[in-house]
Amino acid sequence: MRAEIIAVGSELLTPDRLDTNSLFLTSELNQLGIRVVHKAVVGDSREDMRSSFRHALDRAEVIIASGGLGPTDDDITRETLADLLGRKLHLDQAILLQIQERFRRFGRAMPEINIRQAMVPEGATTLPNPRGSAPGIWIEDSGRIVILLPGVPVELRTMFEEQVKPRLVRIAPSERLHKRDLRITGLPESDVEQRVSPLYAMYPDTETTILSSPSGIQLHPRMWSADAAKAEKILDEITGRMALALGENLYSMKGESLEEVVARVLTENRATVAVAESCTGGLVAGHLTDVPGSSSYFLGGVVCYSNDLKTSLVGVPAELIASKGAVSSEVALALADGIRKRTGATLGIGITGIAGPGGGTPEKPVGLVHIGIADERGPREKAIRFPGDRERIRIYATYAALDTLRRYFPYSAHGRG
Amino acid sequence: MRAEIIAVGSELLTPDRLDTNSLFLTSELNQLGIRVVHKAVVGDSREDMRSSFRHALDRAEVIIASGGLGPTDDDITRETLADLLGRKLHLDQAILLQIQERFRRFGRAMPEINIRQAMVPEGATTLPNPRGSAPGIWIEDSGRIVILLPGVPVELRTMFEEQVKPRLVRIAPSERLHKRDLRITGLPESDVEQRVSPLYAMYPDTETTILSSPSGIQLHPRMWSADAAKAEKILDEITGRMALALGENLYSMKGESLEEVVARVLTENRATVAVAESCTGGLVAGHLTDVPGSSSYFLGGVVCYSNDLKTSLVGVPAELIASKGAVSSEVALALADGIRKRTGATLGIGITGIAGPGGGTPEKPVGLVHIGIADERGPREKAIRFPGDRERIRIYATYAALDTLRRYFPYSAHGRG
Repeated sequence: MRAEIIAVGSELLTPDRLDTNSLFLTSELNQLGIRVVHKAVVGDSREDMRSSFRHALDRAEVIIASGGLGPTDDDITRETLADLLGRKLHLDQAILLQIQERFRRFGRAMPEINIRQAMVPEGATTLPNPRGSAPGIWIEDSGRIVILLPGVPVELRTMFEEQVKPRLVRIAPSERLHKRDLRITGLPESDVEQRVSPLYAMYPDTETTILSSPSGIQLHPRMWSADAAKAEKILDEITGRMALALGENLYSMKGESLEEVVARVLTENRATVAVAESCTGGLVAGHLTDVPGSSSYFLGGVVCYSNDLKTSLVGVPAELIASKGAVSSEVALALADGIRKRTGATLGIGITGIAGPGGGTPEKPVGLVHIGIADERGPREKAIRFPGDRERIRIYATYAALDTLRRYFPYSAHGRG
Repeated sequence: MRAEIIAVGSELLTPDRLDTNSLFLTSELNQLGIRVVHKAVVGDSREDMRSSFRHALDRAEVIIASGGLGPTDDDITRETLADLLGRKLHLDQAILLQIQERFRRFGRAMPEINIRQAMVPEGATTLPNPRGSAPGIWIEDSGRIVILLPGVPVELRTMFEEQVKPRLVRIAPSERLHKRDLRITGLPESDVEQRVSPLYAMYPDTETTILSSPSGIQLHPRMWSADAAKAEKILDEITGRMALALGENLYSMKGESLEEVVARVLTENRATVAVAESCTGGLVAGHLTDVPGSSSYFLGGVVCYSNDLKTSLVGVPAELIASKGAVSSEVALALADGIRKRTGATLGIGITGIAGPGGGTPEKPVGLVHIGIADERGPREKAIRFPGDRERIRIYATYAALDTLRRYFPYSAHGRG
């Protein structure tokens, strides 16, 4: 079963806006066994919209359009579709009462223009909108289903869940999309690709998307099948082989974030952590505290951007900074050890580097970052050179610090699976 | 002049990927006076792609397609378009040599399959790709221009700048898009809308998009005109009136980020700052240090997640925390004052609050955040209740802290304009 998604709205044709509703809709449709074969974005022009709908009706059995159901003159989705299908619009009194009631609840009279929202094409079913005033529309025509939903994401999602999904389930094919979400760090995309791509030919019924993000690489193997047990078994096999090929670089087989995995290993090992950051400027602390409940393992940290604060707040000897430089293995070690001792944490993390754009030298280029980790036996350190601009260097260094924390614990403790 | 953008690739029809090339292309086309009237995403299917191209040729004078120019069997954009236009593909020897040369530079022989990338439809111009192996294509047919570019963003951008733009400039209409970018903080979207929307009717030739982001609200007034001086004058007028309506809440009239404005006012006032953060967990420091050169005004900070660290690193009296609670006006004041004194900064910022999901009470609900700011005369503080989940509360609180810093300085110092 083939679907097409149409996003309506001239603002979606500016350089500032993307239609993100289609990601939610695609995910939901895929789970129902319906493939999205085409997506379109069209402005508030009757002619362009008519053309989009006409072509969508040629291509797909299910068409979902979002947007253009509001009360103003720009909102012409309803009229355009009714006109294209040769159906008259009539005023639905029940819907009108609901809209009036909604305004009354907010202590206002319904403006005259909102009457348009109660106009329904002949033969259509209206879909109530508990979060807003624009109801949705469900029309079946010549073997096609056309669904109109409002463009506001929270309204669209609620209406899809409550109104559209139960109706589509009844007619959806038995084939479903099965998928996995593997998360990898410490390897560039091309290395991940090289390690796992030999598996693609061995599992021709699966398809794998590879995504690159600042926190690392994601592999999404997926398979369409009517036989859930078989699909899950095949996905178990391919992801098991991927795990072997990726080793320690794989940090989750179920789509967890690196922050969540770090939270888990720290909690399971009853460890606490404190950080002393220079070039990452608070981002490591910020990411560690992204996770609810992080106060149970994260004690706190120091952002010591100036050399004085490295000494006064973390106890790095001023002579060490003077002799080795603020960006050095020695200072990273002293930061990790110092913050651990000052806070009483199980582990201390120290980061110093050159985020740029200024401050680089041939010996210490922009992108050079030292990451130290200290436990009760003392500190260790590694230096990494990150590519890219200031923003990328800072975010890569942040994730490298989180990964250093993850890898501190034995691999078996990560409880992947 | 009307344009359509087609993004080719089955991976763009999954729930994980959006076509972002179209934002760049839209911005560039608009600057050339060309409006984007339709965008489409289509998979690697010959039939679907053919249908997309056929309909695009009906609707627009300029069609730009990205993706599907690679060397594999999936990459069928070239063939599909040639077939649709009834043009034969021929091998372009010069392009073949360029591709072979590119492989040679990387020390490899060109794989046989890459020959496909040198196939060019009859009558087409090839567009060299300095960043990759897939050349682009420019075809004129029955008054339409079709441009094929690779999907890799850096390749697409380079080729657009170097090859496509100079060709489009020659045929582009004299009408251009003129625009502004206003940034507002401290007001919800509906309030901004209410204050500026009466202006829309006064300037019917302009159109204004309103965007909401964690850092605040953006207003993008724009106007299509062949008369640049007139358009700029009208935009000056409407943005001047918007500035009056928005007052201090407007922090930039030229699209600067809040971080950049804070950097500017601190630098201009030769002030330094240090922060003591609890619920924002390092994010305020992280955002302050986003800006290159931030070490000239940002000394550092402390992330004192635990109460012990509030006392040991910032000097907040333990009794104060015990009697008033860690989330209180008094502790926010003590954090701001303490971090200022310990670091010698001109200004100290202290933040304490409840990011949730746990830890809320009827008196101190989730979302309550106290923000303190201290100078040599002592600290002051305000409490704000933010809506939303943990992530939103933390990011809203971070921007509120940056905004507190901005508003500390006289409004006239902001140098807007």
